[in-house]
Amino acid sequence: MEIKIQKRVLEANETQAQKNRQYFNDQNVFVMNMMSSPGSGKTQTLCKTLTKLMPALRVGVIVGDICTSNDADRLAVTGVKVTQINTDQFGGDCHLGASLILNSAQALDCRDLDLLIVENIGNLVCPAEFDIGEDVRVVVLSVTEGEDKPLKYPLMFRVADAAILNKIYLLPYLDFDAPLAVENMKTVHPQLPVFELSAKTGAGFDPWIEWIRIKVFEKTGR
Amino acid sequence: MEIKIQKRVLEANETQAQKNRQYFNDQNVFVMNMMSSPGSGKTQTLCKTLTKLMPALRVGVIVGDICTSNDADRLAVTGVKVTQINTDQFGGDCHLGASLILNSAQALDCRDLDLLIVENIGNLVCPAEFDIGEDVRVVVLSVTEGEDKPLKYPLMFRVADAAILNKIYLLPYLDFDAPLAVENMKTVHPQLPVFELSAKTGAGFDPWIEWIRIKVFEKTGR
Repeated sequence: MEIKIQKRVLEANETQAQKNRQYFNDQNVFVMNMMSSPGSGKTQTLCKTLTKLMPALRVGVIVGDICTSNDADRLAVTGVKVTQINTDQFGGDCHLGASLILNSAQALDCRDLDLLIVENIGNLVCPAEFDIGEDVRVVVLSVTEGEDKPLKYPLMFRVADAAILNKIYLLPYLDFDAPLAVENMKTVHPQLPVFELSAKTGAGFDPWIEWIRIKVFEKTGR
Repeated sequence: MEIKIQKRVLEANETQAQKNRQYFNDQNVFVMNMMSSPGSGKTQTLCKTLTKLMPALRVGVIVGDICTSNDADRLAVTGVKVTQINTDQFGGDCHLGASLILNSAQALDCRDLDLLIVENIGNLVCPAEFDIGEDVRVVVLSVTEGEDKPLKYPLMFRVADAAILNKIYLLPYLDFDAPLAVENMKTVHPQLPVFELSAKTGAGFDPWIEWIRIKVFEKTGR
């Protein structure tokens, strides 16, 4: 019974996601959905990413959390246009659904944006199931989380268009086998591009920034 | 609509959880539900915990993951009776529901156990909403995840009977304010006992082990 109900919820979401996609295409804005476990460093990665993309690209961010506006506050320091969704008013939802995204995107006024980034709720399971009409999905895994996460949460890595392996500055202090983690990602998604970087030190950012620039250009021509 | 559906799923789960609770009481076994983000170190914490509790206490473990039997394999090394649930056959569920738990508990034969530990799926959101008929809930947060997680995922910390702050051996290499993390836990749950420890080095385990022993004794007399 539970599975049938889930299917209906997902179908309703998919219908809305198609409407979002149409809206984003009409506005000629490129949309990136960033997902990860809680605490893998999405916000810090985004802060550094924004300082490298702006002002050449005009960027907006939608941040999802169950509670608090901590992440929006941290992102706002970069000067980005940012809006926070708190899902506690919607039953404490564990993911951002397509309908919440469209309202927030319209509030940000996408006509003035080249790139809209959605920082999803920290959860390696449910957000992977909910299309929000994005152009690409990026999963962030930190080196403190263990090499086997791609095998244990395969859907997230299968639906991703790129992966970030974050916090590489901690490698000397951990028993973490980075090549094995990358190999596990490739096992579930052979063509997945993986960017190994540190949002704290800035190491490894150049190929990641280049990847975004190319993707945005391919869609928007900007 | 989605919220109404969720409510029905949760009500069905609650009915099953009451049956589980009755079963666990009949078997006189104490049940602990461990929850956390992916990669916070639940399995390693459990391995060390088991070596300290056994054989004085007879322990069984139910491990939940979407895919793989990695965690059950790691736990089996301690000699514990362990069974793995993979939810990929149930739509990739992001939590362990009460009905899955009863089947696994019966397979383990709880009559011969003093303590049954459930290692839930790595997810700081959904497992907090699903009662499985446990006696206590324990949330594990690692010091790499950021101090604000209790404020961003308050339900998990509100329903917990104890919290573990794990990986404290990494504190010298992080900008992590451990007293602030504990303060944030107490903000959402003032009476929450917090055990700061390292499953890697074994630091801080004594009060945590003592807490479990007292809890098991209070229920089972053993």
